[in-house]
Amino acid sequence: MERLPALERLTACLARLPGVGSRTAERMALRLVRDPGGLARDLAEALTEARSRVVGCSQCGSVTATDRNPCRLCTAPNRDDGLLCVVEDPNDILTIERCGGFRGRYHALMGRISPMKGSGPDDLRIQALRVRVGQGGLREVVLALNTDVEGDATASYIAHVLEGCGAKITRLAFGLPAGSGIMYSDAVTLRRALEGRQPA
Amino acid sequence: MERLPALERLTACLARLPGVGSRTAERMALRLVRDPGGLARDLAEALTEARSRVVGCSQCGSVTATDRNPCRLCTAPNRDDGLLCVVEDPNDILTIERCGGFRGRYHALMGRISPMKGSGPDDLRIQALRVRVGQGGLREVVLALNTDVEGDATASYIAHVLEGCGAKITRLAFGLPAGSGIMYSDAVTLRRALEGRQPA
Repeated sequence: MERLPALERLTACLARLPGVGSRTAERMALRLVRDPGGLARDLAEALTEARSRVVGCSQCGSVTATDRNPCRLCTAPNRDDGLLCVVEDPNDILTIERCGGFRGRYHALMGRISPMKGSGPDDLRIQALRVRVGQGGLREVVLALNTDVEGDATASYIAHVLEGCGAKITRLAFGLPAGSGIMYSDAVTLRRALEGRQPA
Repeated sequence: MERLPALERLTACLARLPGVGSRTAERMALRLVRDPGGLARDLAEALTEARSRVVGCSQCGSVTATDRNPCRLCTAPNRDDGLLCVVEDPNDILTIERCGGFRGRYHALMGRISPMKGSGPDDLRIQALRVRVGQGGLREVVLALNTDVEGDATASYIAHVLEGCGAKITRLAFGLPAGSGIMYSDAVTLRRALEGRQPA
């Protein structure tokens, strides 16, 4: 097949998206240039529009309209200012909001400490978190990080950094996911669920 | 979280990509607008460039440079003009070229017959195939379609349409994939491998 530099460039861009490998990117690129519905044009326009209308929230790091910064979640009057939820990714804010169990403020780190991927504390919004917590007024900082090795390491590091800030530092509970069976649980989850057992 | 129309539009565009569901599209959109490396800009530019430099090949339906139509595979002098390989998707041409086992020409249908997805014969490049085969000069048409229900139905339909065209209509062999074990084969594959058994 002929080498098409324009197609290769598009493929390389698509492969930078989360969860997209080189074969998937190739498939997407071909679809984009051959889509009869004008997907390539629509996507290019949507990207340009999003770039001009959407920015990162200066407070929580999530996304917001260019003319509304900090974002609605950071400024909503009916939320608890004493409670701060720290997440890895703005996406996690969406997920937590959907569950409806949290009414405080958010702070997205924009990643996690990952020596393998060359991402250290300085690549994250940890300094911004420290400043925010240092301003006082917080009762509790909830670390809602992923429950894998890197998430755990990031949580430990942040707990250490925030030591003595006056607010309580907590993590989400470990345990069995809803609707799952003991039989299907992995050993780590089950051990953590046992350690965290609660009165019935 | 605030509704951001620009972000929602971008998410909707991304969800039109193959293999991308709404949650994945959301995650991609957030990454795009928050990427510090300017991925949104790069992707928008790459899309615009690809739209102007890459078109569908008028002959095989795959992609080619705007100033080279039909594509290199359709015009290469060292390929067998008597052999035509029919595929569902331009992507499949890439895959078959990589395997190195085919030296004829190609014809991409741009999909397959799928009543569930509302895609019938008229949505595919079947009429173009009929015209191409009708011009004569072909010894054999190899149907290299996927081996699922819709691929089988599409192959049967095309075999029917091309009946009496003078060329032999064949399909790829069914059987065990390389490197697999009998133990791990599903019943259909195994039955087809038995039916197609060959002298050792």
